[in-house]
Amino acid sequence: MTHKIAILGASGYTGAELVRLIATHPSFEIAALAADRKAGMEMSQVYPHLRHLDLPRLVKIDEIDFSAIDLAFCALPHAMSQEMIGDLPKSLKVVDLSADFRLRDPAEYEKWYGKAHGAVSMQGEAVYGLTEFYREDIRNARLVAGTGCNAAAVQFALRPLIEAALIDLDDIICDLKNGATGAGRSLKEHMLYSERSQDVMAYSAGGTHRHLGEFDQEFSALAGRPVQIMFTPHLIPANRGILATCYVKGEASEIHAGLVARYADEPFVVVLPFGDLPGVAHVQGSNFCHIGVAGERIAGRATVVSAIDNLCKGSSGQAMQNANLMLGVEETTGLTLAPVFP
Amino acid sequence: MTHKIAILGASGYTGAELVRLIATHPSFEIAALAADRKAGMEMSQVYPHLRHLDLPRLVKIDEIDFSAIDLAFCALPHAMSQEMIGDLPKSLKVVDLSADFRLRDPAEYEKWYGKAHGAVSMQGEAVYGLTEFYREDIRNARLVAGTGCNAAAVQFALRPLIEAALIDLDDIICDLKNGATGAGRSLKEHMLYSERSQDVMAYSAGGTHRHLGEFDQEFSALAGRPVQIMFTPHLIPANRGILATCYVKGEASEIHAGLVARYADEPFVVVLPFGDLPGVAHVQGSNFCHIGVAGERIAGRATVVSAIDNLCKGSSGQAMQNANLMLGVEETTGLTLAPVFP
Amino acid sequence: MTHKIAILGASGYTGAELVRLIATHPSFEIAALAADRKAGMEMSQVYPHLRHLDLPRLVKIDEIDFSAIDLAFCALPHAMSQEMIGDLPKSLKVVDLSADFRLRDPAEYEKWYGKAHGAVSMQGEAVYGLTEFYREDIRNARLVAGTGCNAAAVQFALRPLIEAALIDLDDIICDLKNGATGAGRSLKEHMLYSERSQDVMAYSAGGTHRHLGEFDQEFSALAGRPVQIMFTPHLIPANRGILATCYVKGEASEIHAGLVARYADEPFVVVLPFGDLPGVAHVQGSNFCHIGVAGERIAGRATVVSAIDNLCKGSSGQAMQNANLMLGVEETTGLTLAPVFP
Amino acid sequence: MTHKIAILGASGYTGAELVRLIATHPSFEIAALAADRKAGMEMSQVYPHLRHLDLPRLVKIDEIDFSAIDLAFCALPHAMSQEMIGDLPKSLKVVDLSADFRLRDPAEYEKWYGKAHGAVSMQGEAVYGLTEFYREDIRNARLVAGTGCNAAAVQFALRPLIEAALIDLDDIICDLKNGATGAGRSLKEHMLYSERSQDVMAYSAGGTHRHLGEFDQEFSALAGRPVQIMFTPHLIPANRGILATCYVKGEASEIHAGLVARYADEPFVVVLPFGDLPGVAHVQGSNFCHIGVAGERIAGRATVVSAIDNLCKGSSGQAMQNANLMLGVEETTGLTLAPVFP
Repeated sequence: MTHKIAILGASGYTGAELVRLIATHPSFEIAALAADRKAGMEMSQVYPHLRHLDLPRLVKIDEIDFSAIDLAFCALPHAMSQEMIGDLPKSLKVVDLSADFRLRDPAEYEKWYGKAHGAVSMQGEAVYGLTEFYREDIRNARLVAGTGCNAAAVQFALRPLIEAALIDLDDIICDLKNGATGAGRSLKEHMLYSERSQDVMAYSAGGTHRHLGEFDQEFSALAGRPVQIMFTPHLIPANRGILATCYVKGEASEIHAGLVARYADEPFVVVLPFGDLPGVAHVQGSNFCHIGVAGERIAGRATVVSAIDNLCKGSSGQAMQNANLMLGVEETTGLTLAPVFP
Repeated sequence: MTHKIAILGASGYTGAELVRLIATHPSFEIAALAADRKAGMEMSQVYPHLRHLDLPRLVKIDEIDFSAIDLAFCALPHAMSQEMIGDLPKSLKVVDLSADFRLRDPAEYEKWYGKAHGAVSMQGEAVYGLTEFYREDIRNARLVAGTGCNAAAVQFALRPLIEAALIDLDDIICDLKNGATGAGRSLKEHMLYSERSQDVMAYSAGGTHRHLGEFDQEFSALAGRPVQIMFTPHLIPANRGILATCYVKGEASEIHAGLVARYADEPFVVVLPFGDLPGVAHVQGSNFCHIGVAGERIAGRATVVSAIDNLCKGSSGQAMQNANLMLGVEETTGLTLAPVFP
Repeated sequence: MTHKIAILGASGYTGAELVRLIATHPSFEIAALAADRKAGMEMSQVYPHLRHLDLPRLVKIDEIDFSAIDLAFCALPHAMSQEMIGDLPKSLKVVDLSADFRLRDPAEYEKWYGKAHGAVSMQGEAVYGLTEFYREDIRNARLVAGTGCNAAAVQFALRPLIEAALIDLDDIICDLKNGATGAGRSLKEHMLYSERSQDVMAYSAGGTHRHLGEFDQEFSALAGRPVQIMFTPHLIPANRGILATCYVKGEASEIHAGLVARYADEPFVVVLPFGDLPGVAHVQGSNFCHIGVAGERIAGRATVVSAIDNLCKGSSGQAMQNANLMLGVEETTGLTLAPVFP
Repeated sequence: MTHKIAILGASGYTGAELVRLIATHPSFEIAALAADRKAGMEMSQVYPHLRHLDLPRLVKIDEIDFSAIDLAFCALPHAMSQEMIGDLPKSLKVVDLSADFRLRDPAEYEKWYGKAHGAVSMQGEAVYGLTEFYREDIRNARLVAGTGCNAAAVQFALRPLIEAALIDLDDIICDLKNGATGAGRSLKEHMLYSERSQDVMAYSAGGTHRHLGEFDQEFSALAGRPVQIMFTPHLIPANRGILATCYVKGEASEIHAGLVARYADEPFVVVLPFGDLPGVAHVQGSNFCHIGVAGERIAGRATVVSAIDNLCKGSSGQAMQNANLMLGVEETTGLTLAPVFP
């Protein structure tokens, strides 16, 4: 059985990554590709690496006949999703990759995004898309909200520790190193090659990054009381990858054991032997998450490091994993591509 | 039907690339991995990006029971293949990725490699592994000699032009830009990150690069008379990729038409619209070759540019394409992975 | 004696490079910095690497009192220089870094830049700024036109060979590898980090690059008859640097000897021992040009490779070298900084 | 007056950086260059970027006539310095760039370096080389021990805060991002271009990095009681640079004010406006340290980020700053080169 797929917002990096993944998916077929400003162009003009594929021409969203579509990936910029999704047929399954439906509380949305939510009713309906922790809900969902890529990387490292009360909830520090594709394909001076090559710098420091809304929501729900982490992302000179170095208070060996137990049956999350730490080069191009734990000479401290590919496991790979569940396809289908190294 | 595969020399980059590709091949199964100095180790220790796979432990070659193997990829260093291959069972199919069996003439081998060939009889038996041009021979071969990665990139651009007499044979200049993985994983000062990052330099200039032996052999055979090209590779700061810029004398439009016609039915060679030129980023991680042709203000000149991933189409992907043919599997199986961009 | 310097167009990379160089020049003082869109800002906001310097605030050009200025570097975008320079006091010395005054023939300007020149009288007055070949004219010039960065790299390799009739004038092929800063700081999708990192591609192929106007002018004048070269630049993943690989017909040893003789007394041009070829990493951050010559197995052919830093020797360093001459300062002042490697 | 300088261990990156810096120092003259395994070679063969300089040939240390030398920079590998320095004339001033004399306590040395110190008497004599904090002692020292590059980056951020009791001493977490040159020029598989490009990973996690010995020594002495920090360095794909992100408990505004006050008169340490954070690209090639402070939504927390060039301010630049003091030269001489950006 073939499932007809539409990608809305196909001209961004996450859109292109969806096409890459679907290209080897045995039962997904790309039936429509929408990109507002590039409507009318061939995908091969926008992304020459996809020129070997036989793809539909880019169109505007309202040119799509959604009655012939089984599932739409919505890879639009933030705030555009909430405006558009309400117009889609109610029968259409949707995986949204934007930030629009990640926060369940309208007040939290307004706090982090600076304006009232435009589709509050759907906000409540959306299921948070961290597959490994919302699998059953996702299976039955009509609208799944993909997580932030930083949010995914950190939650893989910390959720089992919070859930099992293995760490001090008031002293969690997450230092992230992020590849450049996380900023998307839009034009910004500081994202030029000449500016980013050879540089590393922090951004959105001081508790201002919007993904903190997701951490607050998820970690507080898990702990049953308010939890706030410190979280500082840094831009590094790499295309793909997030390395999340999490400094926690807890027993390192218990933390390692907790992670090993929690992920024993997960196909995409690999916990390294105690003391081994991951690198982003070893997950690039793949849907895998590598997690390592190191002890510390100071008693009662530990370092937990997770690595993912932000475009894949952090975004489009996660989206396809959720789509598989929503369409009744085996969850790992099309996602077992090995990382490309070097 | 499952084919049992051995990889000899699994600890180098081409060995790891073979494992990556076979990981999603539906009918190949890795039955043995050999690596002399790393025998006894797990592959995940040598290549952590493969740690999600269930792979056999690395062994020495003589520990392998070849009676249980259908085909061996031999990714050993040059000169070691010719010593070892003679000891393998005559019934075993072999794809050799080294330079040992590329040249058919023992004198040419000695000229370029500085010593007499150690397995002259097998040298004659080996089929040159440029699939698109030796397909039928490869189908029936027991021993296929993978081409040099530079040799592949240039031949995709030039073979149809030489064959169809579209260019002047005495004035062919090929300027190559090569990613760092072409130098393998061995330790050399000038291959350190700090030395290569931000640098570009020519190497093996002046007609000294060993892949010239392949060009001489192949182009002279095609033309029916001696042909010598100028060929200068350059190291660029990228992991994968070869961009071959070929300066030729001929009519650009005829050249483009000749390439389009020649590759119309080839699944992995894509000729771009006239005037479009390829970039290596658009083939990385894939088995595709992109070729572009540009005209020139000076009448009767043209520029032909080809791009491949040296580890995939230039080496391990080509090897698997040949193995598919040798084992009676559909040629493109396991090789349609889209490039990873960015 | 202190010379008062203005930089017009200080917010681009060549402007910033001028500030970097002047920072250690013993007799130049930056008296004014102009940048139209960023007027009112501190230079440290535009270029944080200069924040240790005590620099004037950015202003609009018409806010500058040019009576207090000895020399202006004009680093404006092409076409803006010719409009603005006519309004400057006739007594002011000017080094223009744009393309506006490089071509002496108005018809050639129109051919390459697609519109009539707006200051034809000044076009004739301008001296071409390739210091090593126009030194005496520059010393007495009021207006010096900085060369194209590609034009500089190639001319260092080829001028002595054309002048001394050491090479065939009808078969010169120059393949350039260019760092990303050559494209400036303006926002273009293909110049984003994620697009350029790991990629190499040709651009302006086929005899369409505007620097060909300079080559035609200079080489034809040297040869006393029309000379046209083939010239194809490529973008490589490095910030700074141009490597010009020039394929010529001539005797390699004579070519090497000719270059050694020509540059024996030049402080910034270093000819390597025969057979050694340069890398761009070895000139980055400096005003040096390294040139190497390799022989070729095909008799009568040779490869000449030159390497410069496009922002320094190819642009701002050359400009300061010329300014030194124009102001009667020792030519090498402030320019002997060693390259920064690695 | 000219000071005669010897560099022992000239073939490593810190040796080459010393040559680069001395090249524009008005009163230092390189009288001898020693490199054991490369003795007999020209420096231009080992470092082609220095080929424009007129340098003495590399020799073995025992070939140097130290009676003609005023000061020796000792850039030897760790453990070799302590063996060799005792043999030098007692009148010779020495700046040691190795780890051998950084720790004053022989027991601490043995703890971190795994063997007894071989020159305990000299260990006591050595002055710790963090210029901004040991200036007067350095002025009168015969032997100065250069700091670890990580140790320098972190101490610039934290010393004034510990000294002024502005932060909680029991909860200091330093997450470092380090360029590849910090690993030197020795051959290691994980330092190959293909391995490091596009990767980021932690190393020496868990309180095992040897620079912790320096932190313990310095911070405990400052605080008057034992202080232990958490410190995890990460390798990032850049040649030069250390970004130290320090997570502390204290009032961000007080911390900023404390740093501004402490460094107001320091020529090389620049504190950014509150909320601005530095990037390593803005200090590369220079002796500057940029420090920024960000507040945090969680009350009583702050982030302090410092950036230096590990080869310059973290090693050879610091060494030359100290040499200036020891020889009675103005401290900033030869060190005011602006960073090279981009």
